[in-house]
Amino acid sequence: MTLSMYQASVPVFVRALDNLTAVLKKGHAHAQAKGVDDAVLLQTRLIPDMLPLVKQVQIACDMACRGAARLAGVEPASFEDNETTFEQVYDRIARAVAYVKGFGAEQIDGSETRAIHLKMRSGELHYDGQAYLLEFVLPNVFFHCTTAYNILREAGTEIGKQDFIGRH
Amino acid sequence: MTLSMYQASVPVFVRALDNLTAVLKKGHAHAQAKGVDDAVLLQTRLIPDMLPLVKQVQIACDMACRGAARLAGVEPASFEDNETTFEQVYDRIARAVAYVKGFGAEQIDGSETRAIHLKMRSGELHYDGQAYLLEFVLPNVFFHCTTAYNILREAGTEIGKQDFIGRH
Repeated sequence: MTLSMYQASVPVFVRALDNLTAVLKKGHAHAQAKGVDDAVLLQTRLIPDMLPLVKQVQIACDMACRGAARLAGVEPASFEDNETTFEQVYDRIARAVAYVKGFGAEQIDGSETRAIHLKMRSGELHYDGQAYLLEFVLPNVFFHCTTAYNILREAGTEIGKQDFIGRH
Repeated sequence: MTLSMYQASVPVFVRALDNLTAVLKKGHAHAQAKGVDDAVLLQTRLIPDMLPLVKQVQIACDMACRGAARLAGVEPASFEDNETTFEQVYDRIARAVAYVKGFGAEQIDGSETRAIHLKMRSGELHYDGQAYLLEFVLPNVFFHCTTAYNILREAGTEIGKQDFIGRH
């Protein structure tokens, strides 16, 4: 079987988000052991002009959801950004995973040449499906999952790269 | 044309490493403007028990080089880890990019089911080519490029996610 657009997107997003949940649970447990409120850790940043942990998670979820939807040619669902506890964050990720898993191979395979238009603050970007996945969605999903990991790591959570990569 | 193992590996690695060079150049310029020695910034870490900037770059390069070689069924080349200046780091990345570009589509396409064995500190891991690329190499390349970005960002470099994602 040859690599397909579905295999390079949905299962990769699901795996990244599942690993993100595992990393967050270790961060949450560390914060609880230290008596740190959920809201404080969720608002922690590497540096004041970077986005806080909760936003890193929200963007990772949105990138995966929008990635799958756009590859499938469907208008992406919108999720409200209102999480203030870790339980709500886990639920947000679980909803993103369920949404992403809702797209089947028959919807995403063959999307290599699908025209995808993104409205960015800096203007419109035009991609074909393959470049959108490889040059935009995957780097973004991993960027935000890694930055969430780095925030938790810097906050003292005992996690290693194996937690980010996940089990095999 | 359908997505191939080559397209999901070599050009993605090259793009990530080129963007890494661009981010490092901004970090280097910032350090020079502040009178910070190359060696000091290259040894900067997010937290003392994480790897320093130079090591993040070396691992990103190695992941890409070994990823391409193993998918092609070739014994990966070994690169010495001895960079102490940004010029040497740029050269290391350039050698990694040249090495990765040395593999052609005809060597990597069809590697979905190639058996790949990794010797890790924790034991041996057995992958097929597709899982190795999607579950190990790509997350690792982006993890180390993102962590390098985060170290530079935390050190005060004026970079944004657009620098990490690169031009389109």
